[in-house]
Amino acid sequence: MTTRAVLFDVDGTLVDSNYRHVHAWSQAFALVGRPVDAWRIHAAIGMDSGLLLNELLGEEAAELGPRAQELHGRFYAEASRDLRPLNGARELVKEVARRGHAVVLATSAPEDELATLRDALQVDEFVSLSTSSEDVGTAKPEPDIVRVALTRAGVDACEAVFIGDSRWDVEAAARAGVKCVALRSGGTGALELFNAGAFFVWDDPADLLAHYSETLE
Amino acid sequence: MTTRAVLFDVDGTLVDSNYRHVHAWSQAFALVGRPVDAWRIHAAIGMDSGLLLNELLGEEAAELGPRAQELHGRFYAEASRDLRPLNGARELVKEVARRGHAVVLATSAPEDELATLRDALQVDEFVSLSTSSEDVGTAKPEPDIVRVALTRAGVDACEAVFIGDSRWDVEAAARAGVKCVALRSGGTGALELFNAGAFFVWDDPADLLAHYSETLE
Repeated sequence: MTTRAVLFDVDGTLVDSNYRHVHAWSQAFALVGRPVDAWRIHAAIGMDSGLLLNELLGEEAAELGPRAQELHGRFYAEASRDLRPLNGARELVKEVARRGHAVVLATSAPEDELATLRDALQVDEFVSLSTSSEDVGTAKPEPDIVRVALTRAGVDACEAVFIGDSRWDVEAAARAGVKCVALRSGGTGALELFNAGAFFVWDDPADLLAHYSETLE
Repeated sequence: MTTRAVLFDVDGTLVDSNYRHVHAWSQAFALVGRPVDAWRIHAAIGMDSGLLLNELLGEEAAELGPRAQELHGRFYAEASRDLRPLNGARELVKEVARRGHAVVLATSAPEDELATLRDALQVDEFVSLSTSSEDVGTAKPEPDIVRVALTRAGVDACEAVFIGDSRWDVEAAARAGVKCVALRSGGTGALELFNAGAFFVWDDPADLLAHYSETLE
């Protein structure tokens, strides 16, 4: 099979934003009176935000979730003014486009967050299409966002590779039948990513770029 | 052998502070003009700060390190006003003391940070002794801090258990001949901790407490 499209998660995969999400959720949960240990927040990052709230707030998700989500949005917006691409992210996107593969940003971030992420990345001219939270009911680990991305790109699952940084990415890709390459740049360890089912694990976009042929062709 | 002393790392093991350190270092590195991807900072947390600076700044450590360290100290102090114990941390320390084992805080945090951590923990009456950065030249993964803790507690390596959350803890304990039990609460994955040499890995202090007999007796 030949790769025709490369589907990218964005948070933690192309942009150095995961730890800012952890920080923003941490502040939000403390303010609603239900503090959550930071490592548990980190482990839930990349998951659909409704699922994240259920996971971290349990029975109190219905009562406290909406306010926590609103506070997270506000704190994250404050913290995301100086977001930076991860090491090699721009170069990797450009190389995918140069090789003639479609670059698909397959994220379920809300539209306003996606705009901020794209501003940080500055690779719009190389991006074929992108998805957002508007496109699916439930985000990762459900495979819906991956399927939407495949349909829009007009490629079969076996013609695509998904690049992500969390076990939720790996699971969503697997459930959509797409091979997942994982990066450590979101803060999840390599062994955890292999264990979740990643085909390859590299440090960050620059490391993947250095192993392009064996990974993405 | 019988356990006579339990040596605790503090940051990420008893107090939910690792992600605040990541945030503070992240801001510090950006301000000195040499931003570092957050996951690399996280992976270096728990390491001696001089080694951390060498690891993350490379050749620029000598020039930029002192200023980055000063900024980290300032940002971390601001961020540590509302530090919280990790889930079950107080209960675990109390149980160790109740069973007649010495509770040793074996950290190489600076004295001022240690005071803040102890304020957050509120378990001083159960702590036999503690170490700080004043006690050793180079902190973890060098085994010095573990050896100092053993000497002060008057126990042999085989009579102690070290509890930590990072691969640097596991390495330092191993080099001092002390069995290390690791917790996921600092944000390092269980497989990574086992791979580093941890004898047991539990989620957090509460989870360790639930498995006390098999782990610490």
